[in-house]
Amino acid sequence: MSDDVPPETVESKMCTRFPRVKIGDTVEDIEEMLSQHTNQFDSIDYIYVVDDQNILQGVISIKKVFSTQDNETKVENIMKKDLVKVTPPTGQERIVYLALSHGLKALPVVDDEDHLLGIVPYDEILKTFNQEVKKDIFRFGGLFHRVGEEYTSITSSAWVMMRSRLPWLIVGVLGGTAAASVVTSFEELLSKFLVLAAFIPVLVYMSDAVGTQSEALIIRSVALDPELPLGGYIIREFKVAAMLAVVCGFLISVVAIIGWGTYFLGAVVGLSMLVSIIAAVCISTFLPLVFRRFNYDPAVATGPLATIISDITTLGIYFSMAILLLDFLNLI
Amino acid sequence: MSDDVPPETVESKMCTRFPRVKIGDTVEDIEEMLSQHTNQFDSIDYIYVVDDQNILQGVISIKKVFSTQDNETKVENIMKKDLVKVTPPTGQERIVYLALSHGLKALPVVDDEDHLLGIVPYDEILKTFNQEVKKDIFRFGGLFHRVGEEYTSITSSAWVMMRSRLPWLIVGVLGGTAAASVVTSFEELLSKFLVLAAFIPVLVYMSDAVGTQSEALIIRSVALDPELPLGGYIIREFKVAAMLAVVCGFLISVVAIIGWGTYFLGAVVGLSMLVSIIAAVCISTFLPLVFRRFNYDPAVATGPLATIISDITTLGIYFSMAILLLDFLNLI
Repeated sequence: MSDDVPPETVESKMCTRFPRVKIGDTVEDIEEMLSQHTNQFDSIDYIYVVDDQNILQGVISIKKVFSTQDNETKVENIMKKDLVKVTPPTGQERIVYLALSHGLKALPVVDDEDHLLGIVPYDEILKTFNQEVKKDIFRFGGLFHRVGEEYTSITSSAWVMMRSRLPWLIVGVLGGTAAASVVTSFEELLSKFLVLAAFIPVLVYMSDAVGTQSEALIIRSVALDPELPLGGYIIREFKVAAMLAVVCGFLISVVAIIGWGTYFLGAVVGLSMLVSIIAAVCISTFLPLVFRRFNYDPAVATGPLATIISDITTLGIYFSMAILLLDFLNLI
Repeated sequence: MSDDVPPETVESKMCTRFPRVKIGDTVEDIEEMLSQHTNQFDSIDYIYVVDDQNILQGVISIKKVFSTQDNETKVENIMKKDLVKVTPPTGQERIVYLALSHGLKALPVVDDEDHLLGIVPYDEILKTFNQEVKKDIFRFGGLFHRVGEEYTSITSSAWVMMRSRLPWLIVGVLGGTAAASVVTSFEELLSKFLVLAAFIPVLVYMSDAVGTQSEALIIRSVALDPELPLGGYIIREFKVAAMLAVVCGFLISVVAIIGWGTYFLGAVVGLSMLVSIIAAVCISTFLPLVFRRFNYDPAVATGPLATIISDITTLGIYFSMAILLLDFLNLI
């Protein structure tokens, strides 16, 4: 494979040795070709039918070849004309989606004028699926992808593993420093209402948890199915986020009032959780879209980065809410 | 499919219409069978060879049938005897692993005495792979699985979506309440050294981040490949965790000393991060194993539960470390 082929496109996964017949050929021609050349083919799941200009016209499954009794039957009479096809620059996510949704064992590759160039065979589809899945889960877990395949192998050294895990953790330390500055800047408030410190972990945890759920859903729903209507998806996502925010905010508010005996704390914690959950869903959903808009890899925005930004946002919301409420109740 | 077939085993995915020949048959027999019965078969990727007792002896790929020139060749002379096979109770994770690692389009299903019962065809393998992947990502994101397939569909209502997301969030509120109690129980310490509150978010974030990485790796490495040597994997995991803990602990310590100007804070934060990262890796790695030991679904232990337990542990480590160090330095 040459170096300038993008590694995550059809082009890098295409093979060019496969059965091809012409309009006008018969089932007997197919059988003769198969018995003579099968060993040269990478895959014989489908026989592709082209015209004189090598333009793809249809496809015949190997099963169809066998079940056609009359050997004189012309290929155009048994071929499927309604074809699923891809072009060399098609991304690998799309290959997996098409194979999964149509139950196909191979995909034909054509150029812009429908000339048949090759096929993506079964084993490449399965391999690609596995790669995509790894990418999703690693991205989600904040693992750097550059180190290649070696990190899942038991033979990789601890040193290699550490290099693939450290970069996002260093970003985490920097983000955590910013979070510490936010808390420190509200030190005066905190010294008067020390109990506010106790609810820092639950507020940060809950906004992260809801944000992570949003990501898990968008990773599986949108990334793999490019035809999912994004508008409707986002509207529903916000309805769900609003409901979750109300329920969780109410619950933690009740807990704070009963457990810590202060209505003020209950109000601050409940309202902060409500607002910060909605903020976290916004961040997890829109950050990747903003990155894509400016041609950065949206993968960078999911996982750790979204969590770090939403942590800092949550802390800001929490202490601002406390000051607002103290001001409103004339307690400050 | 009957109700008492476990939905995640080979049995539920098996089909029984496939090409089967006997020892002694010839390639011509195969071709005749295929041309007469292909339409009744779910899959013709492989022709399975059995003896008189229907015991599986070998397999011939459809490609091999075509490339064999002499029609009188006996099937036993061209069949592959070294077979990958599964039994009805085999779990679906194993199906995916075997198909992926051997590049197979179908898997034969046999009973304990090697009698051929059926096959798992291509489309079931791909569907199963997709199900496994969803399960991993959803579990990771803390989404409840019971609601079935509907949650990835754009047509599911917001109400259905909320039900699948709420349960773990309620557990999160309860865990967060426990975390708040831990912080409150150290209120006296916190009132003297208010700056400790500022580093709660980064400590909790970092131990979660490293724990999540460990999970992402174990989900992909161990779950899908049951043959991975677990002992070696865990030893390496702890070497890596120790290195990450030292680097991150050192970094945050430097940040605290430079940014907040106190060596005491630097020492407490640095040492707490070191210990809590290692604790988080222990929790993420061993909790699922403990659950499995007592016959609970280990899936429950990954994701949110591990995070909640590790959050509370981190807070305990942090404040205990502060008291220990204060005591050691005679500052209290």
